[in-house]
Amino acid sequence: MKPISLNKVEIKDKFWTRWQRLIKDDIVPYQWSILNDQIPGVEKSQTIENFRMAAGEVKGEFYGMVFQDSDLAKWLETASYVLTMERNEQLEQWADGVIDILERAQQADGYLNTYFTVAEPDLRWKNLKDGHELYCAGHMIEAAVAYYEATGKSKILHIASKMADQMDAVFGIEEGKLRGYDGHPEIELALIRLYRATNNRKYLNLSKYFVEERGRKPNYFDQEDIERQKIGAKNLTPPKELDYYVAHAPVTEMETAEGHAVRAVYLFSAMADLAAEYQDQALLQAVKKMWQNIVNKRMYITGGIGSSGLHERFTVDYDLPNDRVYAETCASVGFIMWAYRMLELEEDRRYADVMEQVLYNGALSGISLDGKKYFYVNPLEVKPSLLGHRNDLYFVKGERQSWYGCACCPPNIARLLASLGQYIYSYNEARKNLFVHLYIGSQIEQEIEGQLVQINQTGHYPWNGDIQFQVATESPVHFTLALRIPAWCDSFEITVNGERVETMDSLDKGYLKIARTWNSGDRVELLLPMKVRVMRSNPLVRDNVGKISLLRGPIVYCLEQIDNKENLPDIGVSAKTDFQTVFANDLLEEGAINLEFDAWVTDSLSLNVDELYFQTEVKRNPFQAKAIPYFLWANREPGEMLVWIKEEK
Amino acid sequence: MKPISLNKVEIKDKFWTRWQRLIKDDIVPYQWSILNDQIPGVEKSQTIENFRMAAGEVKGEFYGMVFQDSDLAKWLETASYVLTMERNEQLEQWADGVIDILERAQQADGYLNTYFTVAEPDLRWKNLKDGHELYCAGHMIEAAVAYYEATGKSKILHIASKMADQMDAVFGIEEGKLRGYDGHPEIELALIRLYRATNNRKYLNLSKYFVEERGRKPNYFDQEDIERQKIGAKNLTPPKELDYYVAHAPVTEMETAEGHAVRAVYLFSAMADLAAEYQDQALLQAVKKMWQNIVNKRMYITGGIGSSGLHERFTVDYDLPNDRVYAETCASVGFIMWAYRMLELEEDRRYADVMEQVLYNGALSGISLDGKKYFYVNPLEVKPSLLGHRNDLYFVKGERQSWYGCACCPPNIARLLASLGQYIYSYNEARKNLFVHLYIGSQIEQEIEGQLVQINQTGHYPWNGDIQFQVATESPVHFTLALRIPAWCDSFEITVNGERVETMDSLDKGYLKIARTWNSGDRVELLLPMKVRVMRSNPLVRDNVGKISLLRGPIVYCLEQIDNKENLPDIGVSAKTDFQTVFANDLLEEGAINLEFDAWVTDSLSLNVDELYFQTEVKRNPFQAKAIPYFLWANREPGEMLVWIKEEK
Repeated sequence: MKPISLNKVEIKDKFWTRWQRLIKDDIVPYQWSILNDQIPGVEKSQTIENFRMAAGEVKGEFYGMVFQDSDLAKWLETASYVLTMERNEQLEQWADGVIDILERAQQADGYLNTYFTVAEPDLRWKNLKDGHELYCAGHMIEAAVAYYEATGKSKILHIASKMADQMDAVFGIEEGKLRGYDGHPEIELALIRLYRATNNRKYLNLSKYFVEERGRKPNYFDQEDIERQKIGAKNLTPPKELDYYVAHAPVTEMETAEGHAVRAVYLFSAMADLAAEYQDQALLQAVKKMWQNIVNKRMYITGGIGSSGLHERFTVDYDLPNDRVYAETCASVGFIMWAYRMLELEEDRRYADVMEQVLYNGALSGISLDGKKYFYVNPLEVKPSLLGHRNDLYFVKGERQSWYGCACCPPNIARLLASLGQYIYSYNEARKNLFVHLYIGSQIEQEIEGQLVQINQTGHYPWNGDIQFQVATESPVHFTLALRIPAWCDSFEITVNGERVETMDSLDKGYLKIARTWNSGDRVELLLPMKVRVMRSNPLVRDNVGKISLLRGPIVYCLEQIDNKENLPDIGVSAKTDFQTVFANDLLEEGAINLEFDAWVTDSLSLNVDELYFQTEVKRNPFQAKAIPYFLWANREPGEMLVWIKEEK
Repeated sequence: MKPISLNKVEIKDKFWTRWQRLIKDDIVPYQWSILNDQIPGVEKSQTIENFRMAAGEVKGEFYGMVFQDSDLAKWLETASYVLTMERNEQLEQWADGVIDILERAQQADGYLNTYFTVAEPDLRWKNLKDGHELYCAGHMIEAAVAYYEATGKSKILHIASKMADQMDAVFGIEEGKLRGYDGHPEIELALIRLYRATNNRKYLNLSKYFVEERGRKPNYFDQEDIERQKIGAKNLTPPKELDYYVAHAPVTEMETAEGHAVRAVYLFSAMADLAAEYQDQALLQAVKKMWQNIVNKRMYITGGIGSSGLHERFTVDYDLPNDRVYAETCASVGFIMWAYRMLELEEDRRYADVMEQVLYNGALSGISLDGKKYFYVNPLEVKPSLLGHRNDLYFVKGERQSWYGCACCPPNIARLLASLGQYIYSYNEARKNLFVHLYIGSQIEQEIEGQLVQINQTGHYPWNGDIQFQVATESPVHFTLALRIPAWCDSFEITVNGERVETMDSLDKGYLKIARTWNSGDRVELLLPMKVRVMRSNPLVRDNVGKISLLRGPIVYCLEQIDNKENLPDIGVSAKTDFQTVFANDLLEEGAINLEFDAWVTDSLSLNVDELYFQTEVKRNPFQAKAIPYFLWANREPGEMLVWIKEEK
């Protein structure tokens, strides 16, 4: 199946519209000012100035991370999605202006990278391991495709194609070419997008080359290190193991998901695309193995991945501590991209379920309610007073930070939210199956049998599981509407024009398929009962033993100190408790559902504060506890937060 | 009250004699070979060779840590205690030989330190913060006093006195003297020992100066840094905060126990001694405040202290994670030294209880059963497969290591065990109270009212609480025998010559005092019932919420994988379970008491291994669990270990 083109989707959703509006009205203009160093007091970016230097228009020294170019690329990609939502002359003018700079900064042979043009012109393609050259190019290509698709303007697509052509001349297995690949995957998935936009199969093949060459022996990065030592080139970062780069083995020989989590999911995304494009069974099995390893053994309940702060990476199976987690926002964004690609490979709800789980929790937690502050790390348990004192928590923050020096996560979450429309539906043309993966109020247009079919989805998800679909078509058209029934539903109801459709046993890999001839005005109503679910972990997750977490629909809940008390781990709750759902608008203006329930806490009066250890079983008192959606935490005053709560029997 | 001189105590105890024999027969000769670089394949020490260089007898470069001298000092101190137990010509010959080298290495002015004599002769006393000069001197002084007391030979005492005289000329508040103190306390307590051995009050005053000057403003270390920068002297270690050195405030103004745990307890030991010597109430209150802070808020149940791996230090109240703990063996040794000094200040069992708790758990766990391997870090929870993968556990080992490059803990635990006799008793002459703090089979002699009284203590502690005392004296003598009733006893029985003594309400700060005229042959029998105690933590200890630990007598128990199963955190036990005590000699030849009990584990067949998170409450199966004494862990094959066990209701 294939995605629905983003310009055929319009999100009209109480929940998501606010985020999209934030991106459009605040974040994109704000990010533009930062890229142009127009905001006093904010750390220098120099991103656009670097491109001017590469164009030879201004003199100066490169400033920023070696992958500074990608900040502009991610902005341009986000801006493109914003333009897809709504024309915006100012924004288009900014974009066109910067594209002109890119054109002038591009070297005669097609090469475009400011760090290696301005700072280290002799070292082009000599530090693939840490130089992020192909990575930056990948982001630029993604931006180019997005801008082209949003505006129809092709200048940036030509720039991107020239970049890719140059790479194609440099990299490959042919004699005289470099047999390298980037230390940070991204180019691979970008080249597939470029192929799909241009229909030039060369780009697809180059992507396949990059993926297939990765991790082969002798390892390219080891050889590159030797070559760099010979010429005395300095290291850009401290040395790391090959598995950090997900380059420890050929992709089809990897047994577990290793390395830097963002690198991993970007690579796996490309593997999924290539498996589909080439119908490559070995690649398909390989990427499914990675999926199973992560989802079954290495993923937080928030969808966060990467449990080690050092190197922001995977560790070992079931090692999922809640306080020392990394679970980078960028990794969540990449995980969603990958999940959608898995769905394209296999029409199975388990991919969509995870995509939704990551989206509403580990990804959305990365951004504050006002859109101005961001988490890189998304912990499941925080005690702020420890953060300055335990070195093993140095990377965890108790409050979201404003745009950082290394600005990877903020623009990444922005481009995800701006392009959210693409993840809602997909269409299998051969079987005429129109899949609904996400329940987000929206309107789409899809051509089916030569007819333009409109589907209008409405509802109040994720707070309410009552979702409506209205079909509009000029004349009756036969197709199958395939509605995802999330695995967390143990029942559901569907009516078409008010008549009950028979359900559960007709599920096809988690999708309820309604095949019929649809008339304009046909109305489908889906009811997903949203019960509070008390979740437990596999007992191999040491940190969750004896604990439960609370979910409702796709939303993971957490306790915050402000709603409860200090020392959240002391709060105990019975799985059999009656969890009251309370709709409140104190945090989210448009309202959100909190959980209120009876719990137990230590009777502090019966504690002897001078006894650290004692034999007595301390008295427990009833306590009225309140949980809020995890993604909303840290939007009030700083305090403790906890997802996994002690189970009290 | 005062200690009983070590040469008046002979340990005859099934439990402790094995450790003392190990020290005497294996560890002291082995350490001697290492100090002399006589063991092939073991990392170079060069300790004694450094002294030869300082003596100008051989040429070469200093090798080792800046505090390498202290290795020899700790060995010599241990060897002295061994000589106190039993004459040993070979050992005495080694010691005399090395003392001759020390004499020749000592500079004309009394200065003795190989690093600053051989490697940086111009920088003497210029890096008190990190140079360990006074620290090494302190250990040499402790060794000198111990050797003098063991053998009566005074050469080393003269060397030590000359060292102290030189320091006294250099340091102090008088015009022209340095107002410094060492970054690592040790000299302070050593000078008090030197004063007590020589009766030269100058040394006591110098110790008082070092303690009182510490942490005053402007901070000496800050000023020293500036001076060192001026002369371009290199840093010996990375910069650290003043609190790491326990030099962030004057000692009487410290509110909590901060910094490197070993530094802290060495300083607090000296504070306790000085409070006693000068009857200094401010110092007494200050050191009691530190004690309360640690014991009530910053101590593991094993007596381990220092919960941060980075800087081996205290963090904040109740921050006591079981896996990321440091709890250095050296800190336990210092804690015991300090606890005994607190006892001398106040005849209160709470100090002896802690001393015992540290001794049998956090200290003894530092050494393997064969005496050849050592833990620096003493964790309460280990999963070996994580250790190579989680950077936040980099300092934790799953197996004891042989003598390291930085050999602080092995000789420290050796000197503790060799001098254990000094901690058993003490005597308050004014009140004629003979205190028994530890129940260790032993024979002592104490002069009381001009009579030499012998007390013979027998029993099978710590496995059995039935302890006998037999008095031998030439003629009847009146004194009070004060027996510690540990706080963990809720009842006990005492008979004198078979007759019950009335008990509980006659306890005086935890000591049962039997005042009478004692005749030779009088026999006291003490029965401390040893029940298994199920302990809980203050709920502010986040990592122990919902968990219990098992103790019996002074012994903390732990689960090891080899006796149970993988994934120990999954094992649940009810506090009401009947814990069977089983005497077994599989680990400790002479036998030890293990605990066997009914527990519960997840029914793995009812687990879906492909589900990381689920709603179902997984079936629990009965499981026969076994716990062993914590100090015995890691003496078989590597595997998981756990002290705090999930409570299952």
